[in-house]
Amino acid sequence: MSLTDPLPSWNDGKAKQAIIDFVARVTDPDGPDYLMPDDRVAVFDNDGTLWCEQPEPVQGYFMKDRLHAMAPDHPEWKTTEPFKSMLAGDMKGVMASGIKGIAELGMTTHAGMTTDEFTSTVREWLGTAKHPKLHRPYTEVIYQPMLEVLDFLRTKEFVTFIVSGGGAEFMRVFAEDVYGVPPQHVIGSTIKTHFEMRDGTPVLVRDPELDFFDDKSGKPVNINKYIGRRPIACFGNSDGDREMLMWTTLGRSDGHPSFGLIVHHTDAEREFAYDRDHVISGRLDQGLDEAEEYGWVLADMKADWTTVFPVSSQTARTGRG
Amino acid sequence: MSLTDPLPSWNDGKAKQAIIDFVARVTDPDGPDYLMPDDRVAVFDNDGTLWCEQPEPVQGYFMKDRLHAMAPDHPEWKTTEPFKSMLAGDMKGVMASGIKGIAELGMTTHAGMTTDEFTSTVREWLGTAKHPKLHRPYTEVIYQPMLEVLDFLRTKEFVTFIVSGGGAEFMRVFAEDVYGVPPQHVIGSTIKTHFEMRDGTPVLVRDPELDFFDDKSGKPVNINKYIGRRPIACFGNSDGDREMLMWTTLGRSDGHPSFGLIVHHTDAEREFAYDRDHVISGRLDQGLDEAEEYGWVLADMKADWTTVFPVSSQTARTGRG
Repeated sequence: MSLTDPLPSWNDGKAKQAIIDFVARVTDPDGPDYLMPDDRVAVFDNDGTLWCEQPEPVQGYFMKDRLHAMAPDHPEWKTTEPFKSMLAGDMKGVMASGIKGIAELGMTTHAGMTTDEFTSTVREWLGTAKHPKLHRPYTEVIYQPMLEVLDFLRTKEFVTFIVSGGGAEFMRVFAEDVYGVPPQHVIGSTIKTHFEMRDGTPVLVRDPELDFFDDKSGKPVNINKYIGRRPIACFGNSDGDREMLMWTTLGRSDGHPSFGLIVHHTDAEREFAYDRDHVISGRLDQGLDEAEEYGWVLADMKADWTTVFPVSSQTARTGRG
Repeated sequence: MSLTDPLPSWNDGKAKQAIIDFVARVTDPDGPDYLMPDDRVAVFDNDGTLWCEQPEPVQGYFMKDRLHAMAPDHPEWKTTEPFKSMLAGDMKGVMASGIKGIAELGMTTHAGMTTDEFTSTVREWLGTAKHPKLHRPYTEVIYQPMLEVLDFLRTKEFVTFIVSGGGAEFMRVFAEDVYGVPPQHVIGSTIKTHFEMRDGTPVLVRDPELDFFDDKSGKPVNINKYIGRRPIACFGNSDGDREMLMWTTLGRSDGHPSFGLIVHHTDAEREFAYDRDHVISGRLDQGLDEAEEYGWVLADMKADWTTVFPVSSQTARTGRG
């Protein structure tokens, strides 16, 4: 370990030591497991791994707030489901409209505008909205210990990618300032877009159709599609991250050492405690059973983290992969 | 200009000067158009821009050779179209099977194996196959002047991406060694893949279904999806590159300077001469008309390039963006 602790918000313990040991192992030029910087690819889930996803994922709050903001221009929503229930806060009514209804809410708020317009809308919202329970801007319900992991890896010439079920274009609005992860390293769910010329100006328009849902077995698919290399380190928190943890750590024909870590949400006091019985976003069940079998490190939020959220509002990061 | 010519295979002339001037303009820290390295994104088409696509695109030769190699295991092809015609070299017969038949040939040779198996097959083929007219390995029918542009831009802290109609996983096999472009900077057409566990080992299997065709208006769509930034420089050679040239150079709300260049194939002696009347791959018609209107530079292969192909077989590049 260097004189300066690279992970000051982590308590000394197995999880912290495992991170530090792995990084030392692949970056020691005289060691048998040394890897060139090109091979030092690390992937991070976002919701529940880099920022809070409870009681609901952040992008869900964005959707709700957008629907309220758009409602005055849509008087028909007063009598049309699933809009009527959503605006009344009647989640039972929304659920009754099924997957199709929920998709309609998503597309209404995420499609039908240019990519530039969408980016502006998200940026504006992030500048004012606050988490309903934690009473901070969403860009401050991020995990300080994970920011330190991102920084530590980049210091050691890793490239850090986000691979999340969240929308790629949603995350790209803040990922560079908040996590130090530039747009081309943010992989997420996408909706279809099309190119058109409007009065001599090219635009990309977001269409109301899913392009790719970047979750579960879609994550290794997207890692291959976007990165074209297998990562050597993977950080997740839910069963949605199992397949990318497997893709990173199991049966590697290249013989590269690898590392998998699961953030286990055990801290009801400082954040939220949830795993096997959680039904909405972030259920961790199979992954808990497999962690030991596959050698994935469990980071126990309550025991391993001295701090959960950044102290100051100055959360901007500068590192780039 | 520096003492060392960064583009020695370019004759002094408008095209060469335009490249050098643009790079100087966005990298002069005291100039009004200075851009940070993060914003120095350059995109390059591959077929006809970085390597030869005549008389047929390289990936087409791969497909043909694969069909012949696979034929002994498929006696039924002797009597089944479009295989029968393709194996007999009867292109009229192949064309008669229409788009559906051609897609079947493509999927037969590009799907149904793991991503690792596909990569090995391409690598093996590239190691032995030769261009039928130029009698060199395909990885040596690349354009020396364009290698110099790639290197020059990277020296000036640009990140160089390939954005091609060719298959991303096909190009990634050689792009890093040959162009210095690592896998995560190679964007191309993709077929669907799925994740599965085989005897405890995770694999990605290539499925016989197109995921995305990265040509024409698909190019800006993919640039946005994969990179998330608008490039400031774009290099192409055919009408398939028009939309990404437009997306790079027209109506930018960020006010960034931009640069577009079209490689015009005018050299029947050293390579091939083709533009408006060419029907297969690489037709350049609208782009020729628009070049002046939109300020895109035309590089005249015959007049502007002192050399077309690299002299030695030592074409490996080392730069990384």
